[in-house]
Amino acid sequence: MLYAVIMAGGVGTRLWPLSRKNRPKQALRLIGERTMFQHAVDRLAPLFPPERIFVVTSDLMADLLRPQTPELPADNFILEPMGRDSAPAAGLAAIHLLRRDPDAVMVMLTADHYIVDTGQFRAALDAAGQVATAGPIVTLGIRPNYPATGFGYIRLGEAQTIVNGFRVYASAGFTEKPDVATALSFLESRRYVWNSGMFIWRADRLLAEYAAQLPELHAALARIAAALGTPAAGQVLAAEWPNVTRISIDYGIMEHAQDVSVIPVEIGWSDIGSWAAVHDVLPRDENGNVTVGELVALDTHGCYVRSERSEGRLVATIGLKDLVIVDTPDVLLVCPKERAQDVRELVNLLAARGKLERL
Amino acid sequence: MLYAVIMAGGVGTRLWPLSRKNRPKQALRLIGERTMFQHAVDRLAPLFPPERIFVVTSDLMADLLRPQTPELPADNFILEPMGRDSAPAAGLAAIHLLRRDPDAVMVMLTADHYIVDTGQFRAALDAAGQVATAGPIVTLGIRPNYPATGFGYIRLGEAQTIVNGFRVYASAGFTEKPDVATALSFLESRRYVWNSGMFIWRADRLLAEYAAQLPELHAALARIAAALGTPAAGQVLAAEWPNVTRISIDYGIMEHAQDVSVIPVEIGWSDIGSWAAVHDVLPRDENGNVTVGELVALDTHGCYVRSERSEGRLVATIGLKDLVIVDTPDVLLVCPKERAQDVRELVNLLAARGKLERL
Repeated sequence: MLYAVIMAGGVGTRLWPLSRKNRPKQALRLIGERTMFQHAVDRLAPLFPPERIFVVTSDLMADLLRPQTPELPADNFILEPMGRDSAPAAGLAAIHLLRRDPDAVMVMLTADHYIVDTGQFRAALDAAGQVATAGPIVTLGIRPNYPATGFGYIRLGEAQTIVNGFRVYASAGFTEKPDVATALSFLESRRYVWNSGMFIWRADRLLAEYAAQLPELHAALARIAAALGTPAAGQVLAAEWPNVTRISIDYGIMEHAQDVSVIPVEIGWSDIGSWAAVHDVLPRDENGNVTVGELVALDTHGCYVRSERSEGRLVATIGLKDLVIVDTPDVLLVCPKERAQDVRELVNLLAARGKLERL
Repeated sequence: MLYAVIMAGGVGTRLWPLSRKNRPKQALRLIGERTMFQHAVDRLAPLFPPERIFVVTSDLMADLLRPQTPELPADNFILEPMGRDSAPAAGLAAIHLLRRDPDAVMVMLTADHYIVDTGQFRAALDAAGQVATAGPIVTLGIRPNYPATGFGYIRLGEAQTIVNGFRVYASAGFTEKPDVATALSFLESRRYVWNSGMFIWRADRLLAEYAAQLPELHAALARIAAALGTPAAGQVLAAEWPNVTRISIDYGIMEHAQDVSVIPVEIGWSDIGSWAAVHDVLPRDENGNVTVGELVALDTHGCYVRSERSEGRLVATIGLKDLVIVDTPDVLLVCPKERAQDVRELVNLLAARGKLERL
């Protein structure tokens, strides 16, 4: 049976000042009136009924996220005592799924992507599930439309089969984020896709991969799994998790895993990593502006302007181009769209100055 | 005796959103911790004792301004029922002064200028007072340092005398705001000075000028003057003022007045007419920024950033140049310094859209 597991543990520093330590990116209404987390759940229906949608997150975030998806069973929130990056989180989900279903096939997703063509997305997951059931690790690869340097790439190997109309390739290797020249050569070769971070695997296959490549993590997961369903479950998890090494799925297993398949997809996928990306995915007005809240503008083009409507704020602009303005009750951010990545640097600066109440 | 009369009736639209209908420019703390009105009063001491400083304003504004200058006698606030531009306001002040002192010499000032060299300013007023006592209308002319198109100019005629070290010239005529080419020729000729709007005249001379050039205004002022000190004073003023024609001193009398003298001064004078001007007169940090409130900035240069410290706001900027950011509790303005004049247009747009609560 196919299960979705949404990783919802991150903060999203580059979406500061809207994202904060206690209001992470997945809880934000960046696109319309639904939060990123709600979008992540919404687009799984009807392929996944709510009982087969799981969420890995922390206690704190679960309190924030649970009320957003009343349709999900409360038990489907799998809680980490603390974030340990994606490999431990996926492993924790895998042992929970295996308790229910020894043949569980797990779709690993994140709450901070945006997907326009959700029908095509579900069709791809269905195809990937069929492939993964037989054993391979499957990943969805995004057909690149520009030479991005912010993503890892996967090289397509030989074509293996076609499922639901999707061509399935063997993976010929994962690469880290390339420089511009390399990214351009990848784009032109048409043999590379972006690593979307969306993986589909049998839960038992994942654990086998950990046994081979991450034996310490595998051992910790085995001890946690042994306690699941007993009164000691929470205690064992709390004892093990602080000692688990932080490591991502990509570094932890994908670089060396064998029998990996890739399904290239064109689903209107975006990694909503920065304010520039938010501006890019939203419909713009005739001046290229995206506005949340009340704006009065003269000669203003290509801007993302967000203020808190509930605060009764008015933003007035004259003669601006390609600027991001994010106005929250205690912090105002103004920066060019092309500098949106540097919000992280600004947040680091604030942390260094001890302005913790702003983070 | 020399009396100062400060005109404090305007709003200062181009300093929106800090200036509002109920919080005019002269009540704003644009430069340090004193309001523009307080600066206007402060710089008159010790040449003028408080009893000889008068203010022409409206009921509403007097309530705002009186508490700012507890040293001024309450009666020295001369109240207009409504604004009628500068000629009627000056006339109203003149009839009040003449009741106290038939030889009153009146210095007409505004509350929205900034003057760096206040010692030189007072010395010039003292000199102008000496000249005006004998009859001429005297005006302080500002030596231009760039080809401004936003000011009227006065052409210097023959040199008449030197008082307190100030050279006094006959006026060879007032001109309206010139185009750039004309302004440049004025600057190069060294025969023109900016019309600062600071005039010095005997009160009786001013009324004689009105009798000749603005007979209707003169008649209205005569009726108001006749009632001063009687129980009917307020009633007469309230009856006359709505029918008084709006007209400025410049258009109303200066263009045709005879026997006008000009004293060119270099006193670090600025007309604080826009946010660009506010930025220009204030000390800048090493990046050319002027900040009021809390700012955290990366690669930000030549900006004026103002937020309300009392609201606990933090402004964060990345990669900005020559931008004005004015953050008030209900409105945020962002515009390039070079577009600061267009704030007026934005305010007009808001008025047209019926957003009266923002004005």
